[in-house]
Amino acid sequence: MSAPKKLLVLPGDGIGPEIMHEVRRIMDWMAQARGIRFDVSEDLVGGASLAVHGQPITQEVIDAARAADAVLFGSVGDPKWASAGFDRRPEIAILKLRQELGLFANLRPAKVFDSLADASTLKPEVVRGLDIMIVRETVGGIYFGTPRGIETLPDGSRRGINTEVYTTAEIERVARVAFDLARKRDNRVCSVEKCNVMESGLLWKEVVTALHAREYADVELTHMLADNCAMQMVRNPRQFDVIVTGNLFGDLLSDLASMLTGSLGMLPSATLGARGEDGRLPALYEPIHGSAPDIAGQGKANPLAQILSFAMLLRYSFDMQDEAALIETAVSNVLDKGLRTPDIMSAGRTEVNTDGMGSAVLAELERLNAAA
Amino acid sequence: MSAPKKLLVLPGDGIGPEIMHEVRRIMDWMAQARGIRFDVSEDLVGGASLAVHGQPITQEVIDAARAADAVLFGSVGDPKWASAGFDRRPEIAILKLRQELGLFANLRPAKVFDSLADASTLKPEVVRGLDIMIVRETVGGIYFGTPRGIETLPDGSRRGINTEVYTTAEIERVARVAFDLARKRDNRVCSVEKCNVMESGLLWKEVVTALHAREYADVELTHMLADNCAMQMVRNPRQFDVIVTGNLFGDLLSDLASMLTGSLGMLPSATLGARGEDGRLPALYEPIHGSAPDIAGQGKANPLAQILSFAMLLRYSFDMQDEAALIETAVSNVLDKGLRTPDIMSAGRTEVNTDGMGSAVLAELERLNAAA
Ligand SMILES: [Mg+2]
Ligand SMILES: [Mg+2]
Repeated sequence: MSAPKKLLVLPGDGIGPEIMHEVRRIMDWMAQARGIRFDVSEDLVGGASLAVHGQPITQEVIDAARAADAVLFGSVGDPKWASAGFDRRPEIAILKLRQELGLFANLRPAKVFDSLADASTLKPEVVRGLDIMIVRETVGGIYFGTPRGIETLPDGSRRGINTEVYTTAEIERVARVAFDLARKRDNRVCSVEKCNVMESGLLWKEVVTALHAREYADVELTHMLADNCAMQMVRNPRQFDVIVTGNLFGDLLSDLASMLTGSLGMLPSATLGARGEDGRLPALYEPIHGSAPDIAGQGKANPLAQILSFAMLLRYSFDMQDEAALIETAVSNVLDKGLRTPDIMSAGRTEVNTDGMGSAVLAELERLNAAA
Repeated sequence: MSAPKKLLVLPGDGIGPEIMHEVRRIMDWMAQARGIRFDVSEDLVGGASLAVHGQPITQEVIDAARAADAVLFGSVGDPKWASAGFDRRPEIAILKLRQELGLFANLRPAKVFDSLADASTLKPEVVRGLDIMIVRETVGGIYFGTPRGIETLPDGSRRGINTEVYTTAEIERVARVAFDLARKRDNRVCSVEKCNVMESGLLWKEVVTALHAREYADVELTHMLADNCAMQMVRNPRQFDVIVTGNLFGDLLSDLASMLTGSLGMLPSATLGARGEDGRLPALYEPIHGSAPDIAGQGKANPLAQILSFAMLLRYSFDMQDEAALIETAVSNVLDKGLRTPDIMSAGRTEVNTDGMGSAVLAELERLNAAA
């Protein structure tokens, strides 16, 4: 038997610790009921780290993240540190982790659970069964390219400049992530750019097309212009399986896709790096929601996005497909039973607190496991 | 009495001529019923011009557009000329007009007529009454900035580059269009950029803010990040009145807003330049739909977007608010009566052809005018 997988847990600020607590209960259950043990360590990030160490993340935590097989992140951000200065914002913690671990591919699933289909502003028949995965390049493109800045012109007026840059290598590595993911899903990738007006988009399309022909001919590949993609997401979002795109278009399209589901509090995400020569894949998993300091400590937080982030971790970092599916089915069933935290509450449903939702998921895991 | 306004009508290809014919009938009606005469000339663009002159637009037409008080454009594009070469595409006609007339501000209304609210994929209660105006900068930003291109690196791999550039003057002139429009509407402007990660967006925000304080303090100004704007358009699109944004974000957001309405065949647009020292405002009006060559000449085309483009022309170029409102009310009433061209047909409605729809609008204009 191989050594247990090393997991670094970073609850962070606000509701982070209380929703992470519900995941820890699921980890304990997995050890007891299915004999799966993780080597878990937990540490401070964000405002929690600032309070103790005077910095949003310490070198020790970065080193531990690098040594771990996967990182489960809660959320950072705390109004107490709003005026701490640009380099001491709690948010630095996640930016630094992405940078230091080389996490270049952001995975944003937009999935609609049947019993929450009505939460969308789109008609239920348009979004029921929606299951999109957006793969966004996150360390390149116009948010990082140079030259950049604001210059003053001779006449006193100003000029703002940013540069979109993508290289063959940057495009290939994120496209690989998308193609690999598609093979575990519906085997379809839609690559999105603006090749009609941007050379960087033209290169993007050419590189993805060539990589596909060389290594991924078994996956269905289509191409779409970014403006049309924004339209198609509203017109018929279920046409998509995996979407791969650059940093800027991915920024807009992944947020748009999340909103189609109508319940941002339910959505997990992952950020992946390049597999090293030792076979290890740098990976960090986190809910897309924030630290919600206004409801922290009141038992109102919805732990499901954090729990689903853990399921993603099991699926993509540890290839534990059965356990990931078990958790996702348990979440779906609990929702079908009508249990709701305040953020997703609607008429005729049963409101529960953070702990109640966690307990319901655990009970359902127990039932599913016994029935299997 | 001042000289009649000069109007250049360019029907173009595909369904262009047949839907423009319905507008010509409305012009005739306005002369007869309200004594408003235009000095109208009509000419060829697109494939129609290629067939006669061997080029998608002639210098004579460009000069006539410059001399006109406004241009009413149909649509261009014809599969017959698909392989005519990059510089002889029918689409060159509209690109050249924008360039030669200095049309830098694209106005894209996204309006939901009550009786078509169900055509949207969004729930009727979310889009009913929607009336957004997106002002998109169209001659600057990343689609035009330099340096641009694809270069081969020493190791044989490639790098694609595009440059986003905005100057104070470019931002101010498009923001002025937005503020001026807002004053004729609900007096609210939302300026959209990504100032958190792009210096060009930071300059955009600063310039809009300063212009607002200097000249438009009576208009309500808010700022929103582009990714959040994409989300908010799905979450609650009716929160917006006028949105002003750059070329790239405007490309995605205006298409997204159009799709919210569920009926692209209904939407007009305008492209405006800078008012000259003679007080003239270069302006071109056109439906957002294409030339639809597949249904041309069959009486299936929906003339309403072309008719509503004419209403926009009356409103923004000639300040004929009453006549613009009369046409818009007539269109709305005809839809309320259940008349539908095939593209917007649904169960229980009455299908009519292009001419039938035009006649119904005329009859309603007659009725409204008599009742007034
Ligand atoms: Mg975003
Ligand atoms: Mg577009």
